[in-house]
Amino acid sequence: MTEIPEHLLPLLENPNFGALATVRPDGSPQVNTMWFEKDGDTIRFTHTSKRAKFRNLQQNPGMSMVVFDPDMPYHQVEVRGQLAEVIPDPGGSFYLHLARRYGNENPTAPADADDRVILVMSIDRAIGR
Amino acid sequence: MTEIPEHLLPLLENPNFGALATVRPDGSPQVNTMWFEKDGDTIRFTHTSKRAKFRNLQQNPGMSMVVFDPDMPYHQVEVRGQLAEVIPDPGGSFYLHLARRYGNENPTAPADADDRVILVMSIDRAIGR
Repeated sequence: MTEIPEHLLPLLENPNFGALATVRPDGSPQVNTMWFEKDGDTIRFTHTSKRAKFRNLQQNPGMSMVVFDPDMPYHQVEVRGQLAEVIPDPGGSFYLHLARRYGNENPTAPADADDRVILVMSIDRAIGR
Repeated sequence: MTEIPEHLLPLLENPNFGALATVRPDGSPQVNTMWFEKDGDTIRFTHTSKRAKFRNLQQNPGMSMVVFDPDMPYHQVEVRGQLAEVIPDPGGSFYLHLARRYGNENPTAPADADDRVILVMSIDRAIGR
C-alpha cells in the first residue's frame, strides 16, 4: 500500500467515473468507465462473473485506473494495483449501493444480479497531479 | 477499419479527454488521460519518444481508449486499435495544434518539443452507448 497524496484523495472519494484498464488474454489492453468506491487501501467495483473484464483478470490480475475531475480535467490520479479479491454479491447489493452513490435514488437490482461480484483492487501506487 | 456508429462520432470529434490504455513490458496495464484528434480512420495523440507509453508501445502496439461525455457520462465510446505509425514532430507543432483544440489560445512549445512525436492509432473497433 502506497501513501496517497492528500490532494488526490477527493478524486477517489467523490463519485467520479473511473477508466479502468485490464489486459485481454491476447495481450491487448481493454478500458471502460466504471463506478467505484475507495475502501481503505483498496478500490471496489461492481462487476459480473460473465463478462470480459472478469475473464481478463483471471489470466492477468493487473489493473490500472485513471480518474479525473470533469470540471478540472488536468487534476487527475492514476491508481495501479492488482485484483486482490473477488467477493460474490448475489442479488447485487453492492451494485445498488454504488448506483445510489452515483445519484440514482431508487435503483433496482440489475438483470444479472445473480452473477454480480465485487472486484477488489489493491492500491499499489497512486500518482497524479 | 470499422464503421463508427453515427451517435458516437461527436464523442470523438469534440475536444473530450481520452483515457488511453497501453500495456507495460511487465504485462500490466497503464492508463492516462490524453488529448487526441480523430483523423479519418485513425486517432492522433501528441507524445514524446522518452516516456513510458512510448516504450510500452514499442513492445506491445495494442491501444484502447475510452471517451465519455462529462455532461452525460453514460454516453461513451471505447475505441480499440494499434499503433499504426509514429511521426516525428520536432518543435511540437502537433502539440500546439492540440493545445489550441483543447482551449489554450496562446500555447507555447513544451520543454520537450524536440522529442515530440505523433502517435497514430488505428481504429479497429468502436463500441459504445
